[in-house]
Amino acid sequence: MEYRKIKDEDEHEVASDIESLKGKSHTVASSNIALATLGVGSNERTNWKRKGLVTCALTILTSSQSILIVWSKRAGKYEYSVTTANFLVETLKCALSLLALTRIWRNEGVTDDNRLSTTYDEVKVFPIPAALYLFKNLLQYYIFAYVDAPGYQILKNLNIISTGVLYRIILKRKLSEIQWAGFILLCCGCTTAQLNSNSDRVLQTSLPGWMMAIVMALLSGFAGVYTEAIIKKRPSRNINVQNFWLYVFGMAFNAVAIVIQDFDAVANKGFFHGYSFITVLMILNHALSGIAVSMVMKYADNIVKVYSTSVAMLLTAVVSVFLFNFHLSLAFFLGSTVVSVSVYLHSAGKLR
Amino acid sequence: MEYRKIKDEDEHEVASDIESLKGKSHTVASSNIALATLGVGSNERTNWKRKGLVTCALTILTSSQSILIVWSKRAGKYEYSVTTANFLVETLKCALSLLALTRIWRNEGVTDDNRLSTTYDEVKVFPIPAALYLFKNLLQYYIFAYVDAPGYQILKNLNIISTGVLYRIILKRKLSEIQWAGFILLCCGCTTAQLNSNSDRVLQTSLPGWMMAIVMALLSGFAGVYTEAIIKKRPSRNINVQNFWLYVFGMAFNAVAIVIQDFDAVANKGFFHGYSFITVLMILNHALSGIAVSMVMKYADNIVKVYSTSVAMLLTAVVSVFLFNFHLSLAFFLGSTVVSVSVYLHSAGKLR
Repeated sequence: MEYRKIKDEDEHEVASDIESLKGKSHTVASSNIALATLGVGSNERTNWKRKGLVTCALTILTSSQSILIVWSKRAGKYEYSVTTANFLVETLKCALSLLALTRIWRNEGVTDDNRLSTTYDEVKVFPIPAALYLFKNLLQYYIFAYVDAPGYQILKNLNIISTGVLYRIILKRKLSEIQWAGFILLCCGCTTAQLNSNSDRVLQTSLPGWMMAIVMALLSGFAGVYTEAIIKKRPSRNINVQNFWLYVFGMAFNAVAIVIQDFDAVANKGFFHGYSFITVLMILNHALSGIAVSMVMKYADNIVKVYSTSVAMLLTAVVSVFLFNFHLSLAFFLGSTVVSVSVYLHSAGKLR
Repeated sequence: MEYRKIKDEDEHEVASDIESLKGKSHTVASSNIALATLGVGSNERTNWKRKGLVTCALTILTSSQSILIVWSKRAGKYEYSVTTANFLVETLKCALSLLALTRIWRNEGVTDDNRLSTTYDEVKVFPIPAALYLFKNLLQYYIFAYVDAPGYQILKNLNIISTGVLYRIILKRKLSEIQWAGFILLCCGCTTAQLNSNSDRVLQTSLPGWMMAIVMALLSGFAGVYTEAIIKKRPSRNINVQNFWLYVFGMAFNAVAIVIQDFDAVANKGFFHGYSFITVLMILNHALSGIAVSMVMKYADNIVKVYSTSVAMLLTAVVSVFLFNFHLSLAFFLGSTVVSVSVYLHSAGKLR
């Protein structure tokens, strides 16, 4: 029922988008409605700018994120507890959302849309994405009984397909056939770019391994699509308030994870044991990219998010050539070309 | 100037195709013009049937061709002179064209379009494709100084791009942007499907190696596009007559090749030394697929030919799984998916 409502809102949005596009072309023919449609046009342009900005931010943050991970791995093993770092990421995101809100309150005053206080009806769905991610992360420990780490990297590309399918089913938003073709290509291109001499082993994955990989892809896709549904359900609600509540539950779930996984290490060596400058940079980066993901969900959608993170993966590899003397494989060039064509098809398919 | 003429004819054909399509949809709305357009519609359907038939024939013949090559390699080395086999292929094609012509003469009588006698103006361009192929085959001996055989297989995919570009430049026929995207994907998909652990070596190819590969791709693409130009220049001329003259020059050039390359072997061991049942099958297959290529050039185009032979490559691999216990790699699955999407885009791009 909830999704039905969201769907109707979205369809209305799409319909008004098309209306405004039509309006644009009409301005050429008739000047009578020019002023009326010009307003919509510039609004449209602001939306596009904001969409482009958050997408670029997400792409750059995600690619620098992978570079920081490589850097920290080169510098040595993870000495710190990953769960404490995750908790700090959520805390930092919460703090940044609050900071943004205080500025907004100062400038615009407290309104119904930007007040922090919430209702049970609004907040009850916010723990669900965090819970889904936690469940997925728990499964991650078990899948390694069936596939090795490089194989898991390959299987993670199933996320792309699951996100597309769930986006269609749950958010009931349509992609054109050309865009679907692009989406299949995105999955193929990303996988091709990651191919190495051991990749074929993934084909020998047993049935339980495949099942788990598919369940994980569905969980991850569902968490993403569900977050978009929550955020878009109240379009006028300030994104920083929505983020604040999302991250509060993120903090809570990660606190539980610290107790379950790293209680001894934290109790004996302290919360911040093993932290370095890179760790701090990584936490900062994760927090900012987390916020960028939320922004993309608000102002764009999961499809844009998937494209953005996929392009980021390719950017990371290119940057790594210069930073870490990485060698790019023929498979990488082929995969990147396929991904580039896929990005083109996503936008060309939209114009039809 | 010659190509200009061909182009105009083609554009006329395209224009009348569109006209007939429009006509088709009109039959639904108005029954007045139904009879007039129905004629064009069924003509259109015959064209499509013929196009589909020759394309399927080419795909099946090309894939069985590769299987015969694998089979003959498994059975042992090539014991026969390849040049004599090539000469026999051309001779057989010539004989088959003549056979088809005698049947046509018996049924329809000798007309201006199906008479064998020709003019210097018509025949002067027919040796050019055969000469281009001969030159390309000579270059093939030299390129192996720069790349190994598997690397050459990878580089041969440049043919796809060169054919597309020359098709655009020489025949002046347009592909839509979506179709171009599909064509780039076809090249990437075919290359991906052929990837193996040694493929990265091709990236170390030296500049002269790349130059030769590009020149060979251009020669091969040009020969194909030029053949299409010759055949389509006189649309009403019977294809069997055109084939006859193409193959007569093919016979002549291959006779020269026998003298240059295999004179000693043929003189000492005889023309048919080392021939086996498989050799005969291969010659038969090459002759039939050669004729299928000409038919595709006449009734479809070089783009269809490239798609057809690419899909044949994938079919060969799948059939080889059953015949020779081949293992399909992850790269093959990814490449095949990309090629399939590419085929879809080629037809979806056409409809716009």
